[in-house]
Amino acid sequence: MIEDKNQQRTDLGDLGEFGLINHLTKNFKIQQKSTIKGIGDDAAVLEFKNKRVVVTTDLLVEGVHFDLSYMPLKHLGYKAVMVNLSDVYAMNAKATQITISIAVSNRFPLEALEELYAGIETAAKLYGVDVVGGDTTSSKTGLLISVTAIGEVSNDEVVYRNGAKPNDLLVVSGDLGGAYMGLQVLEREKEVYKVNPNNQPDLEPYTYIVERQLKPEARKDIVKLLKELKVKPTAMIDISDGLSSEIIHLCTSSKVGCDLYENKIPLDPQVISTCEEFNIDSTTVALNGGEDYELLFTIKQEDFPKIKANPNLSVIGYITEEAAGLHLVTRADTKIELKAQGWKNFND
Amino acid sequence: MIEDKNQQRTDLGDLGEFGLINHLTKNFKIQQKSTIKGIGDDAAVLEFKNKRVVVTTDLLVEGVHFDLSYMPLKHLGYKAVMVNLSDVYAMNAKATQITISIAVSNRFPLEALEELYAGIETAAKLYGVDVVGGDTTSSKTGLLISVTAIGEVSNDEVVYRNGAKPNDLLVVSGDLGGAYMGLQVLEREKEVYKVNPNNQPDLEPYTYIVERQLKPEARKDIVKLLKELKVKPTAMIDISDGLSSEIIHLCTSSKVGCDLYENKIPLDPQVISTCEEFNIDSTTVALNGGEDYELLFTIKQEDFPKIKANPNLSVIGYITEEAAGLHLVTRADTKIELKAQGWKNFND
Repeated sequence: MIEDKNQQRTDLGDLGEFGLINHLTKNFKIQQKSTIKGIGDDAAVLEFKNKRVVVTTDLLVEGVHFDLSYMPLKHLGYKAVMVNLSDVYAMNAKATQITISIAVSNRFPLEALEELYAGIETAAKLYGVDVVGGDTTSSKTGLLISVTAIGEVSNDEVVYRNGAKPNDLLVVSGDLGGAYMGLQVLEREKEVYKVNPNNQPDLEPYTYIVERQLKPEARKDIVKLLKELKVKPTAMIDISDGLSSEIIHLCTSSKVGCDLYENKIPLDPQVISTCEEFNIDSTTVALNGGEDYELLFTIKQEDFPKIKANPNLSVIGYITEEAAGLHLVTRADTKIELKAQGWKNFND
Repeated sequence: MIEDKNQQRTDLGDLGEFGLINHLTKNFKIQQKSTIKGIGDDAAVLEFKNKRVVVTTDLLVEGVHFDLSYMPLKHLGYKAVMVNLSDVYAMNAKATQITISIAVSNRFPLEALEELYAGIETAAKLYGVDVVGGDTTSSKTGLLISVTAIGEVSNDEVVYRNGAKPNDLLVVSGDLGGAYMGLQVLEREKEVYKVNPNNQPDLEPYTYIVERQLKPEARKDIVKLLKELKVKPTAMIDISDGLSSEIIHLCTSSKVGCDLYENKIPLDPQVISTCEEFNIDSTTVALNGGEDYELLFTIKQEDFPKIKANPNLSVIGYITEEAAGLHLVTRADTKIELKAQGWKNFND
C-alpha cells in the first residue's frame, strides 16, 4: 500500500552474486578505526587491541517479523540494523561493525534491494558502524535478513544480565507499547486497504506509534548518557521481546526477585489513546507487546540522584531477594505474579 | 530417502523460542580462551588482546544450497560450519567462535533440529570453535541456516587475496571436482528413487565424492601445515565457488595475470571415472564445479622446495604480469582465456 508500483525492474539474475554484492555495497564507507579490512576478502579483518569484543546476531523473516505490504524496504533495512545494535548497547558496548546477509526470491527486482540497502546505509552512517561483510543468495519464497553486529567495550565497562542485587532500582529507557500499537494500526489499515484499495489511510493521529514500529531507534544515546552521568548499571538487557519476559530473564540470570510498579511504566499519550480506541489494556501492551528497542537496567540506590531528573529514564521498580519472587504491583496496590507472554513465533 | 520416517515428533511450538535455544545448545562447551561469555546474554563477549579478528558469514537455503531428500540434517549442520570455517582459514587465521541462526518451518519436529545441532556440535568440537550465539525463528517455508564465523590471527600472519606477485607459484590444496560429481550422483539416485522408492541406491563406488558433497572438511590442517613449513602465502582464497572464479578473484585483487596448467589440476580417480560415466569433461568440473572447500594460494618461488613433496598441495600454475591476462594452458598446449562460470543461484 505504500510501495511504488511504477518503479524500474532489473532482474537479480542479470548481475550474478558477486556483481550484486559489489553493486549494493559500493557506497558503504569505513568509519571505525577498528576496521582494518571490510568487504572484499574471504573475511573482514578487525583490530580491537585491549578492548573486549561483543557479538550478536538476529534473523528477520518476511511474514514472521515483517510484512512488506506496510513496511517500506528502506525502513526494513534500517530496522534490521537497529534490532542488532540494540543488543550491543545492552552490553554497555559501542557498536562498531555489522555483516548483512540476505536471501531473496526473484520476485524482488534489484531496485527493491537498493531500497533495502539504502536503509542499511542510513542506519550504519547514523550509528557509526561499518558494514564489513555479508552474503547474498536466492530464496524459494520471500525475503530473509540476517544481521550480525560487533561492538567493543573495555573490560571494566561491560554489563551483563546477571549483576542485579537486592535493593537495586529497576530502570527503563523511553516509553513502552508504542511499537505494538503501531502494528495494530498498520494491520487495521491493511484490512481497510484490502476492502477498498482507493481509500487513503489517515495515519496522522498515529505518527509516533507507527514510527516506533517502522523506524525504531536503538538506544546508543542511553549508553552515552550513562557514561556521562557516571552510572554503571549493575545489569542490563534489551527489551525488544517484551518488558515482562526481559525482567524475568534479568532477574533469573541475577538470581533475584523484583517488584514492578504498574503506575511507573512509561506510556506515551498516543499509546494510551490508541489502546482506548482498540479497547486493549495499556499495561498488557507495555508488558508484552515487544519490539520497543529500549534498555532495561538496574542501578545501585546511591546512583538514583544522578538519573532522577532525566526524561529518558524511568524508575519502574526495585530488585528484591530471589525468594520474594517477581511481582507486578498494580494501580490498585495488589501484587500479582509477573508472567512472560512475549512473541511466540512458532505458535503463530 | 535417507531420512528415518519413524522418528519421534515434538512440535517446536511446545518449547517457545528461548526454550528451543537453550535445549539445542545445552551440550555446547566453551573451548577457546578468547570466549569470555558465550550464549546467554544479549551478546557474546570475546577477548583477542593483540590479535586481529576475522569475521565471515554465509547463508545456506533449503532448495538452493541443499536438498534434504539426500542431505541428512546432521551432515547439513556439519557442512554449514565448514563453509564458514573455510573462509576463516583462507585468511590464514585460527577459527575461534561461530554464531548459528536458523529459520525453520513447523514441518520440522524438534528431533530434526536436534540432528542438525548434533552436526554443528560435532564440527565445533572437532575444529575447536565455540558456539557463542544465534537466533532461532520460524520460517514460512523450509529451512535456512545463517552462520557467522570469527577467528584470530596475528598482524604479521594475516593473508589477503591481493598479495600475489608475478612469478609466484599458484598452489591448491586437496583435489577438485569431487563435491560437484558427488552431487550429480546424489541427484541421479534421487530420480531413481522417485521412480522406484524400494530401490536401494548403491553409493559404494562413489563413497569419496559423495562424502566431498555431504561432509566436506575445511582445511584447518593446511593453515597449520604452512606454519610448520614456514611458508607464508602471498595471497590466499577459499575456492568453494569454483576454481576459475576464485583464480580470477585472486588475480583481479592482486592486479596480476596467471597461467593455469590443465594437466596440473589435481583430480581424484573417482572424479575421473565418474566424469567418464556421466560423460562430463573433468577439467570443466574442476574449474567450475564449486563446493570443494579447498584453499588456493600463491607462494614465492623460493618457497617451492618446502612444499613440493607434500601430497596435500599441488602447484597448478604461476602468476604473470597483469597485462598478460588469465589463461588456462590445455593438455594440447594451447592457451585459452580463463572464464568464471561458478554458481549462479539467481539464474536457477
